[in-house]
Amino acid sequence: MKKEKNLKLSDLGEFGFIARFSTSFLRNLPPEVVGIGDDCAVVPWKGKKKLLVTTDLLIDGVHFLKEKISAEDLGYKSLAVNLSDIAAMGGRPLYALLSLALAPETDVRWLDQFFNGWRALARKTKVQLLGGDTTKTLNKMVINVALLGEAEENFIRYRSAAEPGDIIAVTGPLGNSEGGLRLILSGLRESQLGSDEKKLLKCHYRPRPHLPEGYFLAHQLEVRAMMDVSDGIDSDLKRIIERSNCGVEVWLEKLPVSSFLKKCSQKYGWPLNEVAAAGGEDYCLLVTIDPNGFSRLALRYQRQFRRPLYPIGRITSDRGHFIYLLNGRPVALKKSGYDHFKT
Amino acid sequence: MKKEKNLKLSDLGEFGFIARFSTSFLRNLPPEVVGIGDDCAVVPWKGKKKLLVTTDLLIDGVHFLKEKISAEDLGYKSLAVNLSDIAAMGGRPLYALLSLALAPETDVRWLDQFFNGWRALARKTKVQLLGGDTTKTLNKMVINVALLGEAEENFIRYRSAAEPGDIIAVTGPLGNSEGGLRLILSGLRESQLGSDEKKLLKCHYRPRPHLPEGYFLAHQLEVRAMMDVSDGIDSDLKRIIERSNCGVEVWLEKLPVSSFLKKCSQKYGWPLNEVAAAGGEDYCLLVTIDPNGFSRLALRYQRQFRRPLYPIGRITSDRGHFIYLLNGRPVALKKSGYDHFKT
Repeated sequence: MKKEKNLKLSDLGEFGFIARFSTSFLRNLPPEVVGIGDDCAVVPWKGKKKLLVTTDLLIDGVHFLKEKISAEDLGYKSLAVNLSDIAAMGGRPLYALLSLALAPETDVRWLDQFFNGWRALARKTKVQLLGGDTTKTLNKMVINVALLGEAEENFIRYRSAAEPGDIIAVTGPLGNSEGGLRLILSGLRESQLGSDEKKLLKCHYRPRPHLPEGYFLAHQLEVRAMMDVSDGIDSDLKRIIERSNCGVEVWLEKLPVSSFLKKCSQKYGWPLNEVAAAGGEDYCLLVTIDPNGFSRLALRYQRQFRRPLYPIGRITSDRGHFIYLLNGRPVALKKSGYDHFKT
Repeated sequence: MKKEKNLKLSDLGEFGFIARFSTSFLRNLPPEVVGIGDDCAVVPWKGKKKLLVTTDLLIDGVHFLKEKISAEDLGYKSLAVNLSDIAAMGGRPLYALLSLALAPETDVRWLDQFFNGWRALARKTKVQLLGGDTTKTLNKMVINVALLGEAEENFIRYRSAAEPGDIIAVTGPLGNSEGGLRLILSGLRESQLGSDEKKLLKCHYRPRPHLPEGYFLAHQLEVRAMMDVSDGIDSDLKRIIERSNCGVEVWLEKLPVSSFLKKCSQKYGWPLNEVAAAGGEDYCLLVTIDPNGFSRLALRYQRQFRRPLYPIGRITSDRGHFIYLLNGRPVALKKSGYDHFKT
């Protein structure tokens, strides 16, 4: 460990940064407010209804590549990633604020398409754009979205509610978005893409926020902790066990992966388990569920959505321990999640 | 005018951008919501209380110079400019979300100081930091703040409420922040700065959001339109007359300027009227007031704050017309306000 006075942000890492700077802010919060540490903050609203608040900052070159992604997909995705945070708490989205830093030479047709993509998803999810801020950028495009939503007090799900023994489940396949990203970074051209590749790209560019699933799951008594899969379950489960003071085992052979991700992984030599466990941006939901109620809940879920709820592991009492099992045997995964500040 | 298909953002300008893209979003708003076009958006909250929502995006090189401003001042100012939007509606601030894009090599002590500056102002104004987002930047630092506040329905003041004949007034001296900016851009060193220069720099780096003044003014029946002076009265009054369908005359000899701005303007050859009228970031308030009640109100204001409310002009019925008068005679100002996208 470096001396305090020479510390850089990259030494702290994202987790260390949040730990260092959140304490003093959390200490001063009134008891009716839930601050830093979950997908959304929660503040009092109308009676038993609470206001959910979340924000995401997206930067060209870090979160997307402006030269690769279409304007329409970018407009869609900027809203989608925030909706996913509302879904993760069991809420319904209401209002958005959009901040944009744009180059003065930006093509107005590009902006038309950006707003088309945004508007299509906003209509579907009943989100009102209330305003925002626009400014020029000297360099890279910047997008910040702040989103407000609502949820009933008794049906908000937090990261901190996991209990030893809980079954961990996800609401969709894992790794598709990472597969799409790998294709983009490999520089393949449009003409070289088969139908499997196109499906992966679509998952990366147009992730569907699991709002109906989140709302449904938050209203099931068996569901304890919930969050969305934004940085990959490897990172995201760490957040759950940290907040819930427990441990986790993940059953690698159970991770749901799409047929097209499997085929592309074989074709391009990707390590499928790592792609599924450490790949980010799938934006499905990650839940922990009372083991005594899991089968009943999975059945109700299947009936409601005509898709399965996928069990992928178990919460343990082994505080802070994160184990991957492959057919019951512990294995090591190479990649250990994404940290914004580690270089 | 260029053909539609070749239009760039710089052709539209900031006003054109907002006009082009806000229409479809405003059309779909439910009647109880006030969206794009004012300092804050206004949405239903608890009974007669409304929730105010605002956001500001600040980028190194555009809104501040990271190498010049101290970390503490930057933390302070990031919050202050958003508080000023709440002040402009007559509200009280409640909750903030902070998004930061930082270089991994950022010094942790720099961050400590940034949060010290933020925290000092947040405590004074009773703002709770609820959370946010942190990410790395490849290039310039980015700060986005989203701020929530509250106001009583009947005591919210909008830009659209000005009426012909209204006296226009400001709550503080104009141009100090622009003076500070001019000193910074001139490259003067710390050792070359006299006490007048230091006062200007302080106005630029640590603007005081006029929250008590905004709350007081919003509760006076004589006050009609209100906003904050963020881009300079030249730009900001245009917004008021556009939203209120009227015109404006500004009495240049009445613009309140500080003694230290006057002295520096003489010393460095700055055009004082232009600095006061077109300089941004003073973050005092701009109000229009029923002419029949102005003197009574100005007296109450003086008693309350022990500082004057400065009359600087008059709202006219001459829709869209913006006239500067110097001792009663029309004059032209060189600079015509700041537009983020004009190059």
